[in-house]
Amino acid sequence: MKILIKNVHILTMRASTEKPFIGDIGIENSMIVHVGVVPETFVADKILEGSNLIALPGLINAHTHMGMSLFRNYADDMPLMTWLSEKIWPTEANLTSEDVYYGTMLSLAELIRCGCTTFRDMYYFMDDVAKATDQSGLRANLGLGLVGVADPDGTLFETVRTLHKKWHNGAEGRIKIEVAPHAPYTCSESYLKQAAELALELDTTLHIHLSESRFEVAQSIESLGKTPIAHCRDLGLFKAKSSAAHCVHLEAADFDILRAENVSVLYNPSSNLKLGNGFAKIHKMVSEGINVAIGTDGASSNNNLNMFEELHLGALVNKGVEEDPTVLPAYKMLEMATVGGAKALGIDHLVGTIEIGKKADIILVDIEKAHLAPHHDLVAMLVYSTAGSDVSHVICNGKLILDDNKILTFDEAEVIKKTKEHAKRLIERTNL
Amino acid sequence: MKILIKNVHILTMRASTEKPFIGDIGIENSMIVHVGVVPETFVADKILEGSNLIALPGLINAHTHMGMSLFRNYADDMPLMTWLSEKIWPTEANLTSEDVYYGTMLSLAELIRCGCTTFRDMYYFMDDVAKATDQSGLRANLGLGLVGVADPDGTLFETVRTLHKKWHNGAEGRIKIEVAPHAPYTCSESYLKQAAELALELDTTLHIHLSESRFEVAQSIESLGKTPIAHCRDLGLFKAKSSAAHCVHLEAADFDILRAENVSVLYNPSSNLKLGNGFAKIHKMVSEGINVAIGTDGASSNNNLNMFEELHLGALVNKGVEEDPTVLPAYKMLEMATVGGAKALGIDHLVGTIEIGKKADIILVDIEKAHLAPHHDLVAMLVYSTAGSDVSHVICNGKLILDDNKILTFDEAEVIKKTKEHAKRLIERTNL
Repeated sequence: MKILIKNVHILTMRASTEKPFIGDIGIENSMIVHVGVVPETFVADKILEGSNLIALPGLINAHTHMGMSLFRNYADDMPLMTWLSEKIWPTEANLTSEDVYYGTMLSLAELIRCGCTTFRDMYYFMDDVAKATDQSGLRANLGLGLVGVADPDGTLFETVRTLHKKWHNGAEGRIKIEVAPHAPYTCSESYLKQAAELALELDTTLHIHLSESRFEVAQSIESLGKTPIAHCRDLGLFKAKSSAAHCVHLEAADFDILRAENVSVLYNPSSNLKLGNGFAKIHKMVSEGINVAIGTDGASSNNNLNMFEELHLGALVNKGVEEDPTVLPAYKMLEMATVGGAKALGIDHLVGTIEIGKKADIILVDIEKAHLAPHHDLVAMLVYSTAGSDVSHVICNGKLILDDNKILTFDEAEVIKKTKEHAKRLIERTNL
Repeated sequence: MKILIKNVHILTMRASTEKPFIGDIGIENSMIVHVGVVPETFVADKILEGSNLIALPGLINAHTHMGMSLFRNYADDMPLMTWLSEKIWPTEANLTSEDVYYGTMLSLAELIRCGCTTFRDMYYFMDDVAKATDQSGLRANLGLGLVGVADPDGTLFETVRTLHKKWHNGAEGRIKIEVAPHAPYTCSESYLKQAAELALELDTTLHIHLSESRFEVAQSIESLGKTPIAHCRDLGLFKAKSSAAHCVHLEAADFDILRAENVSVLYNPSSNLKLGNGFAKIHKMVSEGINVAIGTDGASSNNNLNMFEELHLGALVNKGVEEDPTVLPAYKMLEMATVGGAKALGIDHLVGTIEIGKKADIILVDIEKAHLAPHHDLVAMLVYSTAGSDVSHVICNGKLILDDNKILTFDEAEVIKKTKEHAKRLIERTNL
């Protein structure tokens, strides 16, 4: 299969000094084979006319819980512990594998429509999540959520090995299975150590929540005498290639640990604010050389999975916090959502930029809209003005997934209908 | 002209205790004549099937500079004074009336598509803004920007009188002309006094910028010994029915003044952050009984005019600032963008709610989208998940303006094209 995108504005994300330019892109099977000029000998099966479009690398949603779209707008404006203990946890206890399959498919529809080609998921029924991912055509790092307090004998480690055997490098190489211990406050020291050893054994990445709330950090300091990040460093967790979601409440030494241990931070602008956790110091992290990626978190604390919204929100909020409009300029935000995400997921040799030899994960944004005119600066446009709904085409691994606003890989209307039915039955079953 | 909206979810915004319900809405000429049950004797010229839609009052953008969409994505990530003095002001000095007409038309297209039926504008060439508003079918409070330092003899007061004579209550009653002194740091005490007297003379509202930046407040305290808000109170500005945009940096006494003087605050979540000004204490204002409305500010400091984005951002940012997810719940945000806006603009007897006897300013949101499913809570959905592009229909003053995503009152594609040409020529002419 060969795809040719013609006369398109191209933002490669190779370097901040490189401005978007107009050219053609040639895709053959899963790969980008030409950027800028495509030779006439390249005979495409599908030609996309790009003169009203801008092509950029598919966005990478580096932290989410896909199945939680079942709980979108189910419980909002509540205190964190009430939300979790009275709403989310009791309902999650009633989840079936089919619920999670449909919740994930619904999330996939939203990711595709909002220009995301790769996501990193931490949730339950991960075999079903992998099936859904395979079907959708997107790329993912999938980690079964390992909650130590609910898994005292560590039986889930064997489940991760089974998942790894079945799915790692599966779906034409689009799926990676990783190890995802939930957090230090739900996993004992020995459980976390075993998780890290498993990641090293499987030669894969590790994904964890760290220092999300002020309460979590205070409790860690009280009980262990150190921050969650220092605790994880001390027990050797970061020997595995690690990413830490949230990192809202950090002490000065935490920044040093993250940099020294090469831990990527997964920034969740909406979720950190919506749950009342506060402001992650992203400008400081970036300035100190920590790799930062961006995620939406789950739809129940966001309440959507729109990376363009996170780009916008993250840029604005950090300017507000620093009282400095120059921090985190537009290109830097896009870099976190592409190159930074690819690094965090350990797939930067495959994706994150538009260049020859990389996988063809490319999105096209329709710029002929009132809210995007005039076209003074396309990079600023992408961060400050573009909406998820402006994405018209999505290509992942060389395959056209969204074609002129239509999802090709599954029946979206059927997924919406089924997910609504599953959500309704789930809430009834939970009977709160 | 009679319009019937059938089987639609209705959110009237009459009271936070009233849940959305399914029913019909009858519109006759400019008015809402039935809500809930429409008698069979009501024979509509146009029937909208609403079973996949939610109807709510048109959103009110309470602070913007419509013509500035010419500068969208023109100058970003810059220090405030560099942005103004090196980019915005030199370019604005070259504006023509036709530039502002097209910039305003472009903004009108965006407002309509994002579900806004009323806006409040402060800018130049206000006669052209009024023409554009008339043509678009939207409702507006229009205030010629009165920059005292550029108008030493106060000749613009006479222009405001002329505008008032020509346009006040014009365009089928959709347009109000108000008095809009720019700010205390650009207007002398006597100029501000004359502006207030003019508002009282014309029996109209007053619109001003107050306490936007930390620098502005510090300078006021240094030169006058008091905050901008105390200064305006002392010179009698608030004798006119006043609204103050921004109010980011307030002292404790400022809150008391705003409440005592019945001044509405116009909250601009995106702009306050993007320009690095910081966080307006909206939760405190609301708790203390100050009326708050929401605005986008101009497209050059936002960079769009999407009130759904402001709703979302405003809710999240205040939860983050207060580290409390319960503050500014979804309904409260919608209230600010409808009822609060109508009060601030002095038109709450006409618009802001869906009820019999009010003007028919109603928007319909298409809820059959992946990113809005499942439908647990429609109010939360509108604030936390809905995008501007989910708005499918807009009715203003009883007239259908947006019909199934198509703007009926003007040629949108032509406006986009013309505005791009005007923006290009303006930048070339300014020759920075």
